[in-house]
Amino acid sequence: MEQEFSSRLLEEAVTHFSRLPGVGRKTALRLALHLLRQDESVAAGLGNAIINMRSGIRYCRVCHNISEHEVCAICASPMRDDRTVCVVESVKDVMIFENTGQYMGLYHVLGGVISPIDGIGPDKLEIDSLVERVRSGVVDEVILALSATMEGDTTNYYIYRRLEDTGVKVTQLSRGVSVGNEIEYTDEITLGRSLLNRTLFMNAD
Amino acid sequence: MEQEFSSRLLEEAVTHFSRLPGVGRKTALRLALHLLRQDESVAAGLGNAIINMRSGIRYCRVCHNISEHEVCAICASPMRDDRTVCVVESVKDVMIFENTGQYMGLYHVLGGVISPIDGIGPDKLEIDSLVERVRSGVVDEVILALSATMEGDTTNYYIYRRLEDTGVKVTQLSRGVSVGNEIEYTDEITLGRSLLNRTLFMNAD
Repeated sequence: MEQEFSSRLLEEAVTHFSRLPGVGRKTALRLALHLLRQDESVAAGLGNAIINMRSGIRYCRVCHNISEHEVCAICASPMRDDRTVCVVESVKDVMIFENTGQYMGLYHVLGGVISPIDGIGPDKLEIDSLVERVRSGVVDEVILALSATMEGDTTNYYIYRRLEDTGVKVTQLSRGVSVGNEIEYTDEITLGRSLLNRTLFMNAD
Repeated sequence: MEQEFSSRLLEEAVTHFSRLPGVGRKTALRLALHLLRQDESVAAGLGNAIINMRSGIRYCRVCHNISEHEVCAICASPMRDDRTVCVVESVKDVMIFENTGQYMGLYHVLGGVISPIDGIGPDKLEIDSLVERVRSGVVDEVILALSATMEGDTTNYYIYRRLEDTGVKVTQLSRGVSVGNEIEYTDEITLGRSLLNRTLFMNAD
């Protein structure tokens, strides 16, 4: 391997790059050679940004979103409605909801969904902490915003049962035809759900 | 932007990743979130490998290939035939020829090909240093191994003219049907060349 590249330093950079998801050795080599052609500050910038991100980011004590402090900026904001908690699978889903600009409540990041086939039981997810948060706090609505898959539905139902005796209102995202999608290409289950959950025409937005 | 990610450190890592060729912001975010989920040593390993590669690698004084010393391992090797120099476009092309395992001479990395449209004249390439190397050294054959494009051909011809009065033998890679390719899918110019340059059947390998 060292022979292949005639430089141990290049070999090491390629090996580390190729451990990233979706990056093979050819792409890794292309990235490394690109950085060699750039000013030294480009490589230093990328290298340090990676190291600082990993060492500096921790998880919010309340909602488990990424944070640079013990409590994240969303949980700490006085502008957010702390009575509503949206339960999501991942840090990335928080970003997706934030980018809609439509939600002013707080989040709770589960860290996945229940999936026995992958060895993920409820104890591997932030479900106990959600129940504790609801019991001890001011939350009056929990919005379940997990994937519309069997695992997501199972997790929704499990959380619903765990929250049943707290008296909190549990809601979930509406299911229906995606905006911009043609009826012809919408699956039958979604169409059935969207008929069942039809809304008054002038109420629709 | 900072708002989008709720972490300046994540934002910075994503920005730096997305400056890499072929990496958009979505991919950059995927890579950053992947590193956040891994052990801290994974991010530190990648970050330091990038920094060390860029700061530690320099270019061989003789052939301009990447090197960790003033003269690269190929030029310094007593096992290589220093009378033959293969002229290539890039550091990557050196690797490609080395991986064939068929070449025991030395290299000369031009750094590109002549391309007026991209503002690359002969003075931007390592052509003067090639002529100097041939004049002052023991080289008796220069193999032109540039791309079979108009720019490659122009550069080949320019180098040939510059070396004409040194008395060195100038050769180029053979052009013909790629091994494994069907005649039906080979272009006419290549077929014409391969007819013209046909070799004795039992000599072919």
